[in-house]
Amino acid sequence: MMSAERDALTISEAARLIRERAVSPVELFAACLERIRRNDAKLHAFITVLEESALEQARNAEQAVARGDALGPLHGVPLALKDCFAIRGVRMTGGSKLLAHNIPNQDSTVVERLRSAGAVIVGTLNMHEFALGATTANPHYGVARNPWSQDHIPGGSSGGSGIAVAASMCLGSMGTDAGGSVRLPAALCGIVGMKPTYGRISRHGTLPLSLSLDHSGPMTKDVADAALMLQVVAGSDPRDVTCSRRPVPNYFQDLTGEIKGLRVGVPKEYLADAMDREVRDAFLKALGVLQSLGAGMEEVSLPHSRLGPPALVAIALPEAAALHARELKSRADQYSERLRTLLYAGALIPARRYVQAGQARTLIIQDQLAAFRQVDALVSPTAVMPAPRVGDEIARICDRQVNVDAALPRLTLPFNLSGFPAISIPCGFNSGGLPIGLQIVGKAFAEATILNIANAYERNTPWHKRHPSL
Amino acid sequence: MMSAERDALTISEAARLIRERAVSPVELFAACLERIRRNDAKLHAFITVLEESALEQARNAEQAVARGDALGPLHGVPLALKDCFAIRGVRMTGGSKLLAHNIPNQDSTVVERLRSAGAVIVGTLNMHEFALGATTANPHYGVARNPWSQDHIPGGSSGGSGIAVAASMCLGSMGTDAGGSVRLPAALCGIVGMKPTYGRISRHGTLPLSLSLDHSGPMTKDVADAALMLQVVAGSDPRDVTCSRRPVPNYFQDLTGEIKGLRVGVPKEYLADAMDREVRDAFLKALGVLQSLGAGMEEVSLPHSRLGPPALVAIALPEAAALHARELKSRADQYSERLRTLLYAGALIPARRYVQAGQARTLIIQDQLAAFRQVDALVSPTAVMPAPRVGDEIARICDRQVNVDAALPRLTLPFNLSGFPAISIPCGFNSGGLPIGLQIVGKAFAEATILNIANAYERNTPWHKRHPSL
Repeated sequence: MMSAERDALTISEAARLIRERAVSPVELFAACLERIRRNDAKLHAFITVLEESALEQARNAEQAVARGDALGPLHGVPLALKDCFAIRGVRMTGGSKLLAHNIPNQDSTVVERLRSAGAVIVGTLNMHEFALGATTANPHYGVARNPWSQDHIPGGSSGGSGIAVAASMCLGSMGTDAGGSVRLPAALCGIVGMKPTYGRISRHGTLPLSLSLDHSGPMTKDVADAALMLQVVAGSDPRDVTCSRRPVPNYFQDLTGEIKGLRVGVPKEYLADAMDREVRDAFLKALGVLQSLGAGMEEVSLPHSRLGPPALVAIALPEAAALHARELKSRADQYSERLRTLLYAGALIPARRYVQAGQARTLIIQDQLAAFRQVDALVSPTAVMPAPRVGDEIARICDRQVNVDAALPRLTLPFNLSGFPAISIPCGFNSGGLPIGLQIVGKAFAEATILNIANAYERNTPWHKRHPSL
Repeated sequence: MMSAERDALTISEAARLIRERAVSPVELFAACLERIRRNDAKLHAFITVLEESALEQARNAEQAVARGDALGPLHGVPLALKDCFAIRGVRMTGGSKLLAHNIPNQDSTVVERLRSAGAVIVGTLNMHEFALGATTANPHYGVARNPWSQDHIPGGSSGGSGIAVAASMCLGSMGTDAGGSVRLPAALCGIVGMKPTYGRISRHGTLPLSLSLDHSGPMTKDVADAALMLQVVAGSDPRDVTCSRRPVPNYFQDLTGEIKGLRVGVPKEYLADAMDREVRDAFLKALGVLQSLGAGMEEVSLPHSRLGPPALVAIALPEAAALHARELKSRADQYSERLRTLLYAGALIPARRYVQAGQARTLIIQDQLAAFRQVDALVSPTAVMPAPRVGDEIARICDRQVNVDAALPRLTLPFNLSGFPAISIPCGFNSGGLPIGLQIVGKAFAEATILNIANAYERNTPWHKRHPSL
């Protein structure tokens, strides 16, 4: 097998080839490691590379294959995680200096389940400091760069995951998403990123940012892989009280690619605001593809959309400030100035505003529930623009200046407020060669529906097959 | 029928006598009105007496009986409501000057359902200004007084309801409870008061105080009446998104008085703190009664109990401040100084503290859930002391000085934080002739269980049969 082919392997392909003994886990890991060595000094995807323990896991995986053991669905597949999932004995920094030497003595539930499924854990990935930001310009572990163009950001906060998967430094990753942090880097790096329903994946052992908004989710090369990883990590966990006890369907097996008769809604408010022209065009073309596959298109209205961004700020910052209260008092110098300022601001927000933001949140949820009485899924671009340039706080969209931090999550954050599942998949490239993402949103626990729409779209489009030249 | 007998009628007795044509709704209303005229100038239970419309309703009820119409379970029964349930065309003040001329153009769901069941609405009842306090010393509508001793408070915030039912100015009432406001006046006035599970009764048309803590509930002369009223007002309502869609059992019919084998838990932390000796003695005797009826007694622990009072303050005040934000800006002079100060304080509480209070709330709920794995119900005194004297901010319990506002709801507020159902029933009198209340708490939606325990206790004790001499 040629190196280029092997690099482009998806999780499901790799797992199959390993089972068929056509590819060895050690060889697969070695290829990832080689990619990391070649490109990571410039891209800054990794915080910790687990060269030794991953090699050991890969060797064990290889031996298990040789012995003819029963193999899990991810057997021998090299995965990496955003550096906020606890891995026993491996430092978990959360992208911060404060936790630079924090070594968990227990695996997070997500890691436990990935390991049980046979995954090889390659390392931990760069992220925005404490996940509070959308650029992954990390002052402590390196300014992360987009694999499609190093002058551009990969998005964030799970930027390292976006890079590592797009650049085949691992075959899949887990990120966290409190406002768009899985979906945005997926969109900006040209991969698939999914935030399932609030409570679908246990957060035990995951570093929290804001407890009412935090979600975890898979980041992969294609939709089938997202279904496969979700399948493995989702489901009940007594160690996380917010974790749902609903049974987990077989997302992977249920992918039919058949979406005839499904009703898809386009929120008119999402298109009314500033949006990059090439993003808009790619989105409209994607709508055409869905229609050609038999989906019905309807315009829907989410009239309280404008309340979303301020509500998110007034909820996320105080929740983060509450989590960081003690350290912010005793070790404020361990935070970057930007993060310290944001957390102090969060501490100053009056509870009355938090309560009002909660009321806005209710209105936003009611809007979405009303839309879902009309349609089976909502679609929008994932981000209103392709990846901004590294270091730019302000970007230009259609002759309007927008603040990058505020503009990027505008279309993703409403589904952190509601907790409804959303996936971002590649839907094109702009004239500069930067990826564009399509967001598909479902009702609570309707992961199977949006995975299926995403899968149908993907089967009929070429975008997920392109890879950055590095 | 003698006047004294008629005055002591419960709802279920009255409804039966009306159906049997032994008592006329007009006569029953007239007796209530006479009681109001005789005593309300000193007790200040009512804010608005609906002499004309109630008489008209009573006459209509009488005619329906005469015609042989199908009769609802409350047909012809005179009820009154705390002045925070909307009644079409009747001013709803919330005990405030601000809303002195506020006239709703729609019935609240509770009023709608009481009317459908045939109730005669006698008037609206005095309450602590905007329900934020436990004394019902209302600066705008009169300082409410305990019918057992006019030197003492009736408790609050539903103080008018406690007085009106105890003094037979109506046969039952609805109150609201965000920290104990139904159960405390019930305990201090010697009647039954029940706060069902959060979401069991629609809050549509009810003036809110703090949305995550607010409950409505019946206040009656005995447990059967509480079951009957709850039966009528409980259940799904599309106009209140927090209202549960669970089916409503037949609480009234399910009262068996049989509690053999039920396990009852006594939270040790509740008895460890300052508590009036006579209250403690009455409570211990009540435990003996329950045991003699076959209930098993167990000590349970709610280790995070001390977090309850500060958590309640840090949740209730900001939620109230959010609701009052606009009026507090434009019409601050319409609030009493005490209320204005509390709401300003609420507006200053940082959201971070509200979030932390939410975390404390989670711990408290987990404590209660753990206790309910061990027992079927929790019991405690309702209040740590009998009614304090009117005007006293500080009271003395066992040689310790306690703040009345803080001490009164200590044992009731944990179940506003959890939303679990709780009922207060009479369990004795102190040496000064003031009533003492027993609180019984159940799991979520286990109203039938606690009603049944309360009913069993009541069948075997004389307390609910005593009435104040007025």
